[in-house]
Amino acid sequence: MTSEPEATTELDGHYLGNERLGAQYTSAGFGGRVGWGERPALLVIDLAYAWADPEDQMGSDLSPVIASVVRLLEVFRSKDLPRFFTTMAYDPSLRDLTKVARAKTPHLKQMVRGSRPVQLVPELRRRADEPLLEKPGPSAFWGTNLAALLSSYRVDTVVITGCSTSGCIRGTAESAFNRGLHAIVPAEAIGDRSNSAHQASLFDIDNRYGDVLPMETVLNELERV
Amino acid sequence: MTSEPEATTELDGHYLGNERLGAQYTSAGFGGRVGWGERPALLVIDLAYAWADPEDQMGSDLSPVIASVVRLLEVFRSKDLPRFFTTMAYDPSLRDLTKVARAKTPHLKQMVRGSRPVQLVPELRRRADEPLLEKPGPSAFWGTNLAALLSSYRVDTVVITGCSTSGCIRGTAESAFNRGLHAIVPAEAIGDRSNSAHQASLFDIDNRYGDVLPMETVLNELERV
Amino acid sequence: MTSEPEATTELDGHYLGNERLGAQYTSAGFGGRVGWGERPALLVIDLAYAWADPEDQMGSDLSPVIASVVRLLEVFRSKDLPRFFTTMAYDPSLRDLTKVARAKTPHLKQMVRGSRPVQLVPELRRRADEPLLEKPGPSAFWGTNLAALLSSYRVDTVVITGCSTSGCIRGTAESAFNRGLHAIVPAEAIGDRSNSAHQASLFDIDNRYGDVLPMETVLNELERV
Amino acid sequence: MTSEPEATTELDGHYLGNERLGAQYTSAGFGGRVGWGERPALLVIDLAYAWADPEDQMGSDLSPVIASVVRLLEVFRSKDLPRFFTTMAYDPSLRDLTKVARAKTPHLKQMVRGSRPVQLVPELRRRADEPLLEKPGPSAFWGTNLAALLSSYRVDTVVITGCSTSGCIRGTAESAFNRGLHAIVPAEAIGDRSNSAHQASLFDIDNRYGDVLPMETVLNELERV
Repeated sequence: MTSEPEATTELDGHYLGNERLGAQYTSAGFGGRVGWGERPALLVIDLAYAWADPEDQMGSDLSPVIASVVRLLEVFRSKDLPRFFTTMAYDPSLRDLTKVARAKTPHLKQMVRGSRPVQLVPELRRRADEPLLEKPGPSAFWGTNLAALLSSYRVDTVVITGCSTSGCIRGTAESAFNRGLHAIVPAEAIGDRSNSAHQASLFDIDNRYGDVLPMETVLNELERV
Repeated sequence: MTSEPEATTELDGHYLGNERLGAQYTSAGFGGRVGWGERPALLVIDLAYAWADPEDQMGSDLSPVIASVVRLLEVFRSKDLPRFFTTMAYDPSLRDLTKVARAKTPHLKQMVRGSRPVQLVPELRRRADEPLLEKPGPSAFWGTNLAALLSSYRVDTVVITGCSTSGCIRGTAESAFNRGLHAIVPAEAIGDRSNSAHQASLFDIDNRYGDVLPMETVLNELERV
Repeated sequence: MTSEPEATTELDGHYLGNERLGAQYTSAGFGGRVGWGERPALLVIDLAYAWADPEDQMGSDLSPVIASVVRLLEVFRSKDLPRFFTTMAYDPSLRDLTKVARAKTPHLKQMVRGSRPVQLVPELRRRADEPLLEKPGPSAFWGTNLAALLSSYRVDTVVITGCSTSGCIRGTAESAFNRGLHAIVPAEAIGDRSNSAHQASLFDIDNRYGDVLPMETVLNELERV
Repeated sequence: MTSEPEATTELDGHYLGNERLGAQYTSAGFGGRVGWGERPALLVIDLAYAWADPEDQMGSDLSPVIASVVRLLEVFRSKDLPRFFTTMAYDPSLRDLTKVARAKTPHLKQMVRGSRPVQLVPELRRRADEPLLEKPGPSAFWGTNLAALLSSYRVDTVVITGCSTSGCIRGTAESAFNRGLHAIVPAEAIGDRSNSAHQASLFDIDNRYGDVLPMETVLNELERV
């Protein structure tokens, strides 16, 4: 999927910026601010070759997203705040992949444990003490131990980064909301192969689940932690 | 929120109908068909006054959606297939509502157990043996016993109806996908206050989680069960 | 079930007090101390008439347990720390009760929403701002919003009280352990219709999931919070 | 823990056979039969060196249990019914192990992914198309994709085998019950380092969560599937 045309991370302002639609949602009782809790963790979702290599079947160019995530990783590491990475991976037999997942999203059949598509891109320089969770579905909370680890480290705020906005990022943001966690989504640190899907999910996330913020705002806020 | 946005008619057909974007997703390994399993249940999501009464803060006119759901209810009842209804409801103290939910979606503070906004619209004529589940979040599976009840009744397929497409319908479809269930979404039986959010989520659901189908196709298929 | 079994007094002290077995578990790598986290909540499990009224089919005399819970409630209320109550309740149609639950534990068929068996005993004097969660299974975390509420209130420690030790108390302690929470079980504040089942589960909880402590130790620790 | 004295799999009849206590539970509305559903799967829980090698810190001699499981595996394989294996495994950094788990059950710190303790015993001859799930907690359902896979393969009945009765077997049986699944526990195919803990949990499982049956009964029933 190399030829995806639109810039995937620039806010074109259509959804977040459409003031009339935003005002409608606000008057309907959506779009409040969750704000920051006391202790944030960084979630880096699915920045593996399958998504981040434009030569891969479902990949697209996520270089600007990766650069933003690397910047956030530096801050979280320097402050010794928790970081978690995810990828998706299945047995070579694919017997641990549900039939509906195989049918609906056949690209998952290439996500074989140990193969190149499931490996994180090297720019992230994941450290040995930063857990890498293999998640079976879109949300980082489904079928993993993430919620328990966040409780264990007293985390009440998750900064969600990576891809794809309309799939795993959105699913993770909804899960965080369900679980009473503050979800913060830095707009430049998430990406999607489709700009329209990206924009639509940014709008929904910001109105329903967590706060979509510019990177600079996120970085400034982290200075204060 | 009585003045349902027009704004988005230019997007009609943009998502499901945009052949180029659809073809991109297909070639990227999305958008397969989950098809039907062996035993379907009908899920009627949040057709309560808060959403279905245009006079309510977050309500909009869902008459055509309700008419489609009533038609599906007739079929499921005549075949004695399982039906489940949901609504959202909290204690008058709101102490069972998380802080982030109160902040992000303040309309939830009106969803007090026993009050008018949480009551189903009368057109549905819910029967005493059709369970009504109070769900604390968008997905009908989160914080409820729904998954266990579906297992108990050997259901492997959920026909998801009600509202809102970009919130509880989409969340429920993703949960069903996560749990290995076939999710079927009849396009005319779901609704949203925003047409652009509706269309964007239809596209994502159809490419990622379940099959979005015309009512007639769903009704024909049910004839065969 | 008015005649609370004695049968098992010969086992009194067998589990917690059998030093040889305890030493075996310790040398096998069990039985460490989870200790207290930073912010405790009180969970009062199933102190409703069905369990606490000896005239009820599955009830037994839990007066000493209730007295201990009342004492803990006073402390948590005076310090304004979170309290949560649970009961079990189903629709009159029982269609929200799984088939296996109906078959294995037929007493659940009496737990009809609104009926006397599901109501909390009056000694607890539950306040309007203390959530009462209806749970469909043994653990207070299964099919409820409890985990989200604990996250929302920054709780990392749950003091588990009520009944029955070998059912809902143990299930709740295992869930808390799974979720990275500190589980504290005051021995005098939990009860079971069977003393042998009570003792066996106390031993297992203390070795596997949470710290079983005397009431006095718990009360002293709470003074320090 | 090589010197564990008692036979771990022989039913001494104390709990299951104590007719008076059993009768009390029955009259209290427990101990019904869940029976068999339509399609069973075999769960083989934690038969890895850490538990099955008596030289290991927490190991004990489980030879008779393993022999029973091998017999069941043959039947399930010959009928092409689903089989699932579990083990527990953590990163070498142990950062994916909660603090309470490290404190309460320090033996888990030896369960490093790829090391000998987490490997299944060779007698099981696991095949490439039989999924091996790494579970972070006692229940095979917690933090794994097991429930989705069971739904996907239309399984409504789980035959639970392996170890330990008072930990992972019981936790898995409770989870299966919660999820509306029929839990069948062949008494000779599960084991525990402590005979008293084994017996107490057999009694509780049989009264609360699933049917504890002799191997011969299970094998006979499987003939009919």
